[in-house]
Amino acid sequence: MPDLGALLWPRTVALIGASGDGESLRGRIFNVMRGHAFAGELYPVSRSNAEVLGRKAYPSVADLPRPADLAVIIIPAKHVAEELERCGRAGVKSAVVLSSGFAESVGVEGGKMQAEVRAIARRYDMAVMGPNSEGFANIAANLCPTFSPAMEAGARALVPVGRRRPQLAVCAQSGGMGFAFFDHGRAKELAYRYVITTGNEACLEALDFADFILEEGKTDALLLLLEDVKTVETFRRVAEKALRAGKPIIVNKIGRSDAGVRAAASHTAALAGAYAAYQAMFQRYGIIEGGDIGEMVDIAAGFLAWGTRLPRGRRVGVCTASGGGGGWMADACAAAGLEVPELDAATRRQIDVHLPSYGTSQNPVDATAQAAAKIGYAGLAQLVLPSPMIDGIVVVMTARSPHNIERQRDALARLADAAQKPVLLWSYTLPAQRSVEILSEAGLPLYTDIDNCARTMRVMADYRTLRERFLRPIEVRNAPLPTTAAVREGLAAAGPVLCEWEARPILARYGIGTHWVGTLAQTAEEAVAALPRLNGPAALKVQSPDILHKTEAKAVALGLTSAQEVRAAYATVLANARRHAAEARILGVLVAPMAATGREIILGVKRDRTFGPLLMVGLGGVAVEVLKDVALAPVPLDANEARAMLGRLKGAALFDAHRGAPAADVDALVDLMVRLGEFASDHADTVAEIDLNPVLVHARGTGVSVVDALIVKQQSAPSRGED
Amino acid sequence: MPDLGALLWPRTVALIGASGDGESLRGRIFNVMRGHAFAGELYPVSRSNAEVLGRKAYPSVADLPRPADLAVIIIPAKHVAEELERCGRAGVKSAVVLSSGFAESVGVEGGKMQAEVRAIARRYDMAVMGPNSEGFANIAANLCPTFSPAMEAGARALVPVGRRRPQLAVCAQSGGMGFAFFDHGRAKELAYRYVITTGNEACLEALDFADFILEEGKTDALLLLLEDVKTVETFRRVAEKALRAGKPIIVNKIGRSDAGVRAAASHTAALAGAYAAYQAMFQRYGIIEGGDIGEMVDIAAGFLAWGTRLPRGRRVGVCTASGGGGGWMADACAAAGLEVPELDAATRRQIDVHLPSYGTSQNPVDATAQAAAKIGYAGLAQLVLPSPMIDGIVVVMTARSPHNIERQRDALARLADAAQKPVLLWSYTLPAQRSVEILSEAGLPLYTDIDNCARTMRVMADYRTLRERFLRPIEVRNAPLPTTAAVREGLAAAGPVLCEWEARPILARYGIGTHWVGTLAQTAEEAVAALPRLNGPAALKVQSPDILHKTEAKAVALGLTSAQEVRAAYATVLANARRHAAEARILGVLVAPMAATGREIILGVKRDRTFGPLLMVGLGGVAVEVLKDVALAPVPLDANEARAMLGRLKGAALFDAHRGAPAADVDALVDLMVRLGEFASDHADTVAEIDLNPVLVHARGTGVSVVDALIVKQQSAPSRGED
Repeated sequence: MPDLGALLWPRTVALIGASGDGESLRGRIFNVMRGHAFAGELYPVSRSNAEVLGRKAYPSVADLPRPADLAVIIIPAKHVAEELERCGRAGVKSAVVLSSGFAESVGVEGGKMQAEVRAIARRYDMAVMGPNSEGFANIAANLCPTFSPAMEAGARALVPVGRRRPQLAVCAQSGGMGFAFFDHGRAKELAYRYVITTGNEACLEALDFADFILEEGKTDALLLLLEDVKTVETFRRVAEKALRAGKPIIVNKIGRSDAGVRAAASHTAALAGAYAAYQAMFQRYGIIEGGDIGEMVDIAAGFLAWGTRLPRGRRVGVCTASGGGGGWMADACAAAGLEVPELDAATRRQIDVHLPSYGTSQNPVDATAQAAAKIGYAGLAQLVLPSPMIDGIVVVMTARSPHNIERQRDALARLADAAQKPVLLWSYTLPAQRSVEILSEAGLPLYTDIDNCARTMRVMADYRTLRERFLRPIEVRNAPLPTTAAVREGLAAAGPVLCEWEARPILARYGIGTHWVGTLAQTAEEAVAALPRLNGPAALKVQSPDILHKTEAKAVALGLTSAQEVRAAYATVLANARRHAAEARILGVLVAPMAATGREIILGVKRDRTFGPLLMVGLGGVAVEVLKDVALAPVPLDANEARAMLGRLKGAALFDAHRGAPAADVDALVDLMVRLGEFASDHADTVAEIDLNPVLVHARGTGVSVVDALIVKQQSAPSRGED
Repeated sequence: MPDLGALLWPRTVALIGASGDGESLRGRIFNVMRGHAFAGELYPVSRSNAEVLGRKAYPSVADLPRPADLAVIIIPAKHVAEELERCGRAGVKSAVVLSSGFAESVGVEGGKMQAEVRAIARRYDMAVMGPNSEGFANIAANLCPTFSPAMEAGARALVPVGRRRPQLAVCAQSGGMGFAFFDHGRAKELAYRYVITTGNEACLEALDFADFILEEGKTDALLLLLEDVKTVETFRRVAEKALRAGKPIIVNKIGRSDAGVRAAASHTAALAGAYAAYQAMFQRYGIIEGGDIGEMVDIAAGFLAWGTRLPRGRRVGVCTASGGGGGWMADACAAAGLEVPELDAATRRQIDVHLPSYGTSQNPVDATAQAAAKIGYAGLAQLVLPSPMIDGIVVVMTARSPHNIERQRDALARLADAAQKPVLLWSYTLPAQRSVEILSEAGLPLYTDIDNCARTMRVMADYRTLRERFLRPIEVRNAPLPTTAAVREGLAAAGPVLCEWEARPILARYGIGTHWVGTLAQTAEEAVAALPRLNGPAALKVQSPDILHKTEAKAVALGLTSAQEVRAAYATVLANARRHAAEARILGVLVAPMAATGREIILGVKRDRTFGPLLMVGLGGVAVEVLKDVALAPVPLDANEARAMLGRLKGAALFDAHRGAPAADVDALVDLMVRLGEFASDHADTVAEIDLNPVLVHARGTGVSVVDALIVKQQSAPSRGED
């Protein structure tokens, strides 16, 4: 890995393609850079001008008084490789290529030029950002090599004045969006340390910069905008590092929809991975998804203020001077999955002292405008904070008048310093900019969007829970380690598809679907002979690697109780199978016991082209299949993670006791999930798909039944080419 | 109904309780009112001061030089009734009571005082707003009898300068929230006509004002904040009037969650109705729900600009200069249920002329920053608009620089005037206020929240579809009108609960569950004798009005094929029923045919305490029951509405052909829903609940089977007391 420090923290910077024309991108970048008090040297390089905007310009990067740590390149695409080569020879350690017209273009030429850039960067071990980047801003160093108007020097300093704030960084593939994050957050008086836009990522990815930023340790939250993940190892490393350090990552993945994918493909020449796989990875590492720039910045603001005092649970106290506002916030909290419980009697007594008869301390605590004016927002929050019934507070208020906020500033700052539970403010009116400044300086995040406020509290609570779970030692499986070598051999010996009869012995070595008896019958009489061993009615299922959907092929018969029924069914299912697929290779007819009733679920493994094998669990049955209620997670996974997956199902309540039916054996299901995850992980190189469908989860204490099984092998070994 | 015109458009106003103390609410209201150029007379009334803020004050409303059309009352609650009486005697036509301490207070005293206010208002036929109101603003008349800081005269005029805009009105029970709508929308340069806050609604409801505003006909969209609906007839009348006139209502219902209900109950002394019923009513009339003030104002902005040119469908063209921004918007559109289809070849050819090699005309149309700068946002939109593939356009842009927007203003204004499909702008950077002004004047709504932008396009398309459906003549049922009198008698004669055997003949008169054969057996032998008539296996179900959940009582036996099985099952189900409920009155055991397979759904009727009977349809089966995928609608309903209800189910795809199973007989289901709706509507006074559960929907052309039926009558006739 080349030295990202040289790129982000250079002492000398060459601007290659510098121009004095303020209307052009080239001129704009020079203006933006000059506008900030960068402590290092900035050398304009221009073939055509000896001077640019009053500064001596150099004809080539080779002619600089001192070698540049960083070259900022904004010249036509066709000259970039040559120039980068010249930089390499001159000992330049890093470069930002802002020029467009590379792999994002129609035609092959751009892709070739991008490959050249990559090769040169490797040859000289240069840290190269771009091409087609909008540059970056190292705000801590006052270094802004970008033409983004958001970074123009203006009336507003790059960082909020006053007290030093926790710091935020942006890593975005898209330049316009990257700096838009700064624009939104700066208006909310957040302190940014870096804004990094990586464009086509010929060499360095957004996640490489995230890694550098985490290692540096001076940034408290990361905003990430991804069109794709190019190097999964980097993703995993960064995600885990961030979670361990308690530095939340708030992400938007572009290309969630088909149309989005089309845009990503044509724009950054990157194929976006399947969104569900991204979501599974995000959930694994507590990475928080945001749908809108404002929402993501709002969530970050909560963590920046309360990152070390996150809520222990999802119970919120709502304080308000407006009954309508309190009710609305309670609704928003409920919609965000928070609880707004009635406060305890002791706390209510303390509050009631201050309220008129038309207020209420129930929760929402409606102090009324009169009492709120007297005790102030901080005073109100202080009254509610001690309640053991709540894990955090939302104060409904109006920040329209800066005078009103100014008057309360010290009390609010004390609240922010002392509170051991997070306090978020929601202003139902638009706040004056001065109010935003005062509250930011006090350390209290201010929301104008009610849902963003409630959601921030929710994700802060979830982040804490997930992180604590992540930091706990992994639960060790009780079962002995399976003989993976034997399984490997079995898989290697099998054809491309393993039907139930073939898959079962292999899966059984991992403790999957054991305690099952079944016979492969080659004749009707063999099937009849197998019946007594089942101690109950039989299912007949044609076994063929060429018939994946046996039910549709009518190659299954269920609930057979007599020899006569079995004999007839044997003939029927075989005939149906042959009618369905005349050429199918048929191994025989499986005679298996009917499973006891239970909650029907689907359990499976799908190999994602970006992230590798993912375990999938979903509710079964036709109706639920239509609702697509499934959860995914990377493998292997431990029991805690398996349990969390089940919790993510919208129909998770299915497992509870219900209408007289006892609770389901979730422990057995979790065990099965962990085992299947290990199997998928151990044989990730071989297995493309696994279906255990259906699995029946019986009453608590009575286990699960794997009713059917299917393994699909990968066509060939995975290669880089697949990406 | 008293004269709301006198309240909203008075020529003479008395401010009762006027004060010169600018810190008090009384003083603030006078200051707010004086700050605007109201053309009528404003008389301060004060017992203690002969002069208030330099104006002559009058000791009593009886002493005014001319009788007041409107009295604005802000005196302690205990004096309000007396003062209102005085107003009535003095011929005052209307009053706004801003005082608090009425029914929203703890204890009975406030409620009594509120009843007095109501009685006096009725006696004098006075239009009374409040008590506990925050007043109102008639912006068209420069009349602002409120202490809301949002209405203080300031640097900004009450309405945007320049071109006359379409107008917006707010009707809110909550004062703080009501004026917050103004605050948010004014910042977006929207023109408000009224802001009305109704407080406790002792006399007039928010919807009464909405009715007045619709009759007046000068307002183009309504923002509505409801804690409850007090008069259902008013709701229906207003909702229908608005929909016919094409004036969209954008609503938030406070009290959606339990905690919200708690707040509403304690605050406005109103019991909030069940939220699902509200949603059903909103959906019936195309009333659009918004979750956040900003979102609601954003949706209104779309309608104000494009209300007469709403999108004909859900297909959107996305124009962008930022690839990342375009991809993100495409995702947001997909999340909002919109399509972003590839454009047609002819349109693409026209666009491609203008794009560099690294742009794309696919959709999102990524013009790149270079081309966008050249042809401008309007030019870009003009290129995409003609495509027959799209119904509306979103332009991804940056409104940060007012100079850039200023330069394009004429082209943008021409676009807004000429376009026959809506064009929405999303700025990913925060816009300069000057940019907002220019774009508002041009007539183009500007969004900063990506989801609000996409959602606005979606709800505009849905509103158009629903309104066109609503304006079409209602589909007439084919079936002859049932003999409602006979049904009425049957219901009257029955006990409080009608089990299947009792409910079937009554429902059958409406064509519900016909073509069904079944026998009520009193002995095992009667049951056995009934078997042959079924032409297939039998179900046995104990019939008792005291056993509502037969399955849990194990009082059901299924799939019985032989006399022996029937005989044994008869004994078993009866014994189980008696064990379950020893005192249950048992009518007999129903011997019924097993229904053919089909999609399982639940169909029912629930009487909502506010809105009366609602039809409910949902996917059946245990798993889906957990997911609670149901839709509700008021009755009666026509086939179009029934079909729309099914479309609202998340699992609507269940009815499609699926894995070899044929499509379901949705027509038959719709017919059943319409019939059940008529039944529920005709007998709304008697029926509390109906359950047809399950109903099996067979393959297209083969109808539906009502497998079980239950009717629960109301305990007693509904009374006002119930509300």
